[in-house]
Amino acid sequence: FRPPSQNVDYVLGDVNDTQLVLKAASDVDSIIYLASTTVPTTANLDPVADVTGNLISILRLLTELRTKTLKKFVFLSSGGTVYGIPETVPISENHPLRPINSYGIVKVAIENYLFMENKLHGLPSLILRASNPYGPRQGHSGIQGIIGTHLWRMAKGEAPEVWGDGSVVRDFIHVADMAELCYVALTSDQTGCFNAGSGEGTSIADLLTEMQKVVSETSGLEVKTVYKPGRSFDVPKVVLDVSKAKNLLGWQPRIGLTEGLRDNWQWVREEVTRS
Amino acid sequence: FRPPSQNVDYVLGDVNDTQLVLKAASDVDSIIYLASTTVPTTANLDPVADVTGNLISILRLLTELRTKTLKKFVFLSSGGTVYGIPETVPISENHPLRPINSYGIVKVAIENYLFMENKLHGLPSLILRASNPYGPRQGHSGIQGIIGTHLWRMAKGEAPEVWGDGSVVRDFIHVADMAELCYVALTSDQTGCFNAGSGEGTSIADLLTEMQKVVSETSGLEVKTVYKPGRSFDVPKVVLDVSKAKNLLGWQPRIGLTEGLRDNWQWVREEVTRS
Repeated sequence: FRPPSQNVDYVLGDVNDTQLVLKAASDVDSIIYLASTTVPTTANLDPVADVTGNLISILRLLTELRTKTLKKFVFLSSGGTVYGIPETVPISENHPLRPINSYGIVKVAIENYLFMENKLHGLPSLILRASNPYGPRQGHSGIQGIIGTHLWRMAKGEAPEVWGDGSVVRDFIHVADMAELCYVALTSDQTGCFNAGSGEGTSIADLLTEMQKVVSETSGLEVKTVYKPGRSFDVPKVVLDVSKAKNLLGWQPRIGLTEGLRDNWQWVREEVTRS
Repeated sequence: FRPPSQNVDYVLGDVNDTQLVLKAASDVDSIIYLASTTVPTTANLDPVADVTGNLISILRLLTELRTKTLKKFVFLSSGGTVYGIPETVPISENHPLRPINSYGIVKVAIENYLFMENKLHGLPSLILRASNPYGPRQGHSGIQGIIGTHLWRMAKGEAPEVWGDGSVVRDFIHVADMAELCYVALTSDQTGCFNAGSGEGTSIADLLTEMQKVVSETSGLEVKTVYKPGRSFDVPKVVLDVSKAKNLLGWQPRIGLTEGLRDNWQWVREEVTRS
């Protein structure tokens, strides 16, 4: 969605192409590892492919990194899946890890290997357990990213569809806050696990109402949400306690949901007009 | 070490030979999965091989098992590695899982997949987190099984060698108690995770003293232990709380350490004489 930046050296390739990844990583200070071959809704379809595509590929990289001295290795984990069904909300980083899908199981395994590499080989790793990021330039395929998917539908005059009664609660974080947290994580002296969310819970029903409001006030479009029979195995409520990131990284989310939705909606409208 | 039993249909092969494993599993009521391509001391050497040989192979089996109805799937996990460095001793099953080596990380991932298969596909899985089993017919290669290795050395008149000062505490369970627990697990209605140990902690120094006593009283052999500079990254103390298995499975360990060592020593002596 954006032209390439002049100050960035882009190397495009498959994360499972170990030779290419190692070559790209051969002369860098730090790494932010955002790659994934799966999303939560697809990982269960083929757990072997999930493990091969995500766990094995990063293990190959980590083994090679033992001979190098990195300033920081930031890994994006998943605040929505590693804890499983939360015992308490908001969820702190000390909550037990009881993932109930392949996506979360693989993230936990990677987190454990990063912890081990830190203990045994000094890798300065920092793990961000992201909640649900949203904002401009998110895909809208319907597989991941409820806000992007629905704003896109609304912009095309289609009704957003929700599985279940909309009572499921999630923690939405704007991509600009998330990007700032990645930067802070990269430059901080801290290591270990940090929740990365807004710290606020929003039900899907309330989210849709807010989105309709934003869409209506800026474009006059009146959209109705269609509720469909529920998907099973959705974790009912995920809200992350982000006080550790506030206290130890000096970061805090700055973009509220309404402001963030306006920003996202403006970008979607422009994209839909352009396309 | 034993002649094949007439009542057992043996199928010998590699656990990574998926076709063979599936064929062997095609007409069974229940499975006890004891296979592993690694031991705690070797798994870190090649984490990719650990994941491929142990996690991927069992995932292939579990995916196939979705179409079958098993009475029970018993998996042998590792009470000595899945908890990492214990916060409290004795360790209950609710203790956080913070493994610090590849062996434990892979066991945790397998446990999580078994939990997921139970939730999503009804697999009646029961996980036994074994402490340190010992007893007749244990290997004596020195890689795994401190009791077997040292009794074998003693029987040959060699001094047992200990890395560190012997203060490391472990929970030793006799193989007969372990086997009985496997049988109870297989026939019980229970699912979930169970610690499988003696519930008693013994330091390596005390263990060696006890072994020397047993060896001396039965054979007159006087052996001295040689202490060598310590291995790093040994978890200092592992003692499993086995009250869950007592309460829910009606099992309890019956063979005390001295009795178990006598039994083990008698077998080692006979083997050494025979070979």
